[in-house]
Amino acid sequence: MTFETVSTAKAYGGTQGVYRHDSTATGTPMTVSVYVPPHKEGQRLPVVWYLSGLTCTHANVTDKGEYRRACAELGLIFVAPDTSPRGEGVADDPAYDMGQGAGFYVDATQAPWAPHFGMWSYVTEELPALVATHFPADMDRQSIMGHSMGGHGALTIGLTLPERFRAISAFAPIVAPSQVPWGEKALGGYLGDDRASWRRHDAVALIEDGARVPAMLVDQGDADQFLEEQLKPHLLATACEAAGIDLTLRMQPGYDHSYYFISTFMADHLAWHAERLR
Amino acid sequence: MTFETVSTAKAYGGTQGVYRHDSTATGTPMTVSVYVPPHKEGQRLPVVWYLSGLTCTHANVTDKGEYRRACAELGLIFVAPDTSPRGEGVADDPAYDMGQGAGFYVDATQAPWAPHFGMWSYVTEELPALVATHFPADMDRQSIMGHSMGGHGALTIGLTLPERFRAISAFAPIVAPSQVPWGEKALGGYLGDDRASWRRHDAVALIEDGARVPAMLVDQGDADQFLEEQLKPHLLATACEAAGIDLTLRMQPGYDHSYYFISTFMADHLAWHAERLR
Repeated sequence: MTFETVSTAKAYGGTQGVYRHDSTATGTPMTVSVYVPPHKEGQRLPVVWYLSGLTCTHANVTDKGEYRRACAELGLIFVAPDTSPRGEGVADDPAYDMGQGAGFYVDATQAPWAPHFGMWSYVTEELPALVATHFPADMDRQSIMGHSMGGHGALTIGLTLPERFRAISAFAPIVAPSQVPWGEKALGGYLGDDRASWRRHDAVALIEDGARVPAMLVDQGDADQFLEEQLKPHLLATACEAAGIDLTLRMQPGYDHSYYFISTFMADHLAWHAERLR
Repeated sequence: MTFETVSTAKAYGGTQGVYRHDSTATGTPMTVSVYVPPHKEGQRLPVVWYLSGLTCTHANVTDKGEYRRACAELGLIFVAPDTSPRGEGVADDPAYDMGQGAGFYVDATQAPWAPHFGMWSYVTEELPALVATHFPADMDRQSIMGHSMGGHGALTIGLTLPERFRAISAFAPIVAPSQVPWGEKALGGYLGDDRASWRRHDAVALIEDGARVPAMLVDQGDADQFLEEQLKPHLLATACEAAGIDLTLRMQPGYDHSYYFISTFMADHLAWHAERLR
């Protein structure tokens, strides 16, 4: 399989790269951003996965996430995939919350999405194998984080694969897609009308159905325009409390849904991950 | 004069804003990015000016510069103007290194540029008055920095107004525009063929002609594609040595001309400025 370097640049003593490869999971080329911090020859480093939100590519967090300084100090590889397959021949929706840029980290089963929208398999199987092959990664030490739709991805993937991910955190995640407009549209479109099939892709439902992790960290701005209608972090708090999961939910006064918010708390999250990846 | 808020967002406890106003110096609307760190009611804060390079608007450093954390910690206001007037009716050049996005921080005297390209007056007179009016700025404590063409702007403005700017630094600056292709084209176009008129807009010539400041900090990547032909930092080193100016010129191995380079050393520069702004 081809794994092509689009660009690399030195940053904080390490290497910020952008790579492109043909994906079996999506049947398209996919682009991914990987930061490798300064390290000793032969050293293997823990891997933090960052899943992005609606409309984003790999580039948004790469440009605006301000993660490199902390990753360099803490010795973390940072992997930021795209949010969907893209290109001609890939199904799309006129709205921003479905189709290209909005894969919701599921394997779609419904037309017209099923042929390319295999983002669950891409992020949990195909891309990890490529990261293990092409970077100095210690795949026994992985963690996962994300923003908004990518927070949903981080929570659902982390809850499903607790043996793989030692830490899970999120910025302004969609915690219960089955209960909010973004999620009802996307899960209905990608997975069909049978709401039972949605539960594997809903963090609150996963916890209600028995998924367990030791701890999670979530930051949420209280000036976030999507807070009330789409995000509803109290649903996660309630589920975690009932399940005995140690959720740290921090309501951050005055912060919105943007990368200004994410970048402010990025170093905090990475330090929290690094503690659990030691 | 109108001074309109385009957007504000909380970041690192402070406020990242983007503002728009009609400019007398350029005869166009201008957009500017201003970060105000967390501070006490009534407190006045020092101001760091950041001048951007070719092709940039206010947005590049705002998105990719990674200055907010250090500005929040050090208590610095960070002002990032656009690099030229823009819009219909404003002269332009088909190349990226002249016209819109390439004002070179001069007041153009030549056709077709003279009507709008008043970036020297804009950055040194008009915008400072607006910053003093609209932000909690201590205008007795200012410093200036920039990148590439903006490094040229920071050096020439800082050398011309040493009583105003307590610190001057630059990332990969054009130090001697009269001696390199970018500068010969721009200064020739904006100021005309009389090379004597260029000397006020050439850092090396300014120093040769007697301009003095106590110290300057310059970082330059040795993998910068523009190093040999356009930047030539050794010319600045030679001029500073002859003039007794304490230049710290750091050649940074492996770094290119991008914001990956700038962001890596941004916090260093801001700490250096903050020491001199106390």
